[in-house]
Amino acid sequence: MTTTEGRRDRRKRQTRATLSTTALRMVAEHGLDHVTVDEISEAAGVSPRTFFNYFGCKDEAVVGNAVVDEARLDARLAAVPADVPAVAALRTAFAELVDDIQADRDLWSLRMQVVERNPALLSRLVTIGVRNERTITAAVAARLGLPGDHDYPALVAAVTGAALRSCLGQWARSGGTRPLTDLVDEAFAALAAGLPEPAHHP
Amino acid sequence: MTTTEGRRDRRKRQTRATLSTTALRMVAEHGLDHVTVDEISEAAGVSPRTFFNYFGCKDEAVVGNAVVDEARLDARLAAVPADVPAVAALRTAFAELVDDIQADRDLWSLRMQVVERNPALLSRLVTIGVRNERTITAAVAARLGLPGDHDYPALVAAVTGAALRSCLGQWARSGGTRPLTDLVDEAFAALAAGLPEPAHHP
Repeated sequence: MTTTEGRRDRRKRQTRATLSTTALRMVAEHGLDHVTVDEISEAAGVSPRTFFNYFGCKDEAVVGNAVVDEARLDARLAAVPADVPAVAALRTAFAELVDDIQADRDLWSLRMQVVERNPALLSRLVTIGVRNERTITAAVAARLGLPGDHDYPALVAAVTGAALRSCLGQWARSGGTRPLTDLVDEAFAALAAGLPEPAHHP
Repeated sequence: MTTTEGRRDRRKRQTRATLSTTALRMVAEHGLDHVTVDEISEAAGVSPRTFFNYFGCKDEAVVGNAVVDEARLDARLAAVPADVPAVAALRTAFAELVDDIQADRDLWSLRMQVVERNPALLSRLVTIGVRNERTITAAVAARLGLPGDHDYPALVAAVTGAALRSCLGQWARSGGTRPLTDLVDEAFAALAAGLPEPAHHP
């Protein structure tokens, strides 16, 4: 990756984050039904046309479009040596996503509050989740040379997705004081170890 | 439990299943917005009053109200010896739920088709899922004497829930030919073993 590409990627990520943050703040204040794309664009200082370069609709800006790109995930998994087990390989493949979320801490914290208050947004989140789970299932099956309908890739995709979600919840509840990357490292280590119970408890 | 109670429970389960199956068949045929509680009750041969003894609304009959009862889960977990690890203890505690779903195979198969075609139902399913995950988190924390906001119970609840969901999906995709109980046994064994990759793959 060249420096120029890195800079452009960063600028795109910033514009996307600005649009989402603006949308989230306005929805938090006025309610989902009382905010339009035009108003969000104006408040963020971009044209509605630019808005639609980043998001397909208002709800998408609010919930985010954290859709896992299949080709990118395949490439990241392929970069992890073949003898690394699937769970550890996925942790490595998810590293950039986790870092990005960590970098947009305030945005994600606000997003989780807004979704909790607007259940209508849940089904969109779930749709993204289902799609991502299918992508991860396919990528794990490809890595291991298993048929797409084998139990193992589906189980690993569901379970690692749930672990990520659980970490996001713990991270939000801690007010972001515990680094998300640490939480994810610990969760994936626990998965690989068979979810042993914590050593000391009263 | 006396025989009388067992029989009454069975009859209640059957009425509930009949109402759900009737609702699902009508929704599959006419669409979610074109079926009323009165029509479902009439088709199932009960009064609307009886309907509301089982379900709070139409959507609930369609999606089901598979809400995990906290007191019951606590009691089931308490019945599993304390030296059994949490994941295996949860498998035992879920046994009856899994058996019930297995017994209502056609109902669940239809349910999954209808939900897939009516995304509006997803948010209700997710709401139930979130509630169940909280119940399981609290039960695991209580069993292990951990504080309610500890990472471990939240992780175990998220991950075992995802494993159950994955098994339901594989079971539905197999057309119910593979017993759900076997799929759940295998998935929980894989979780406890750290999700090892399948031994032989080409």
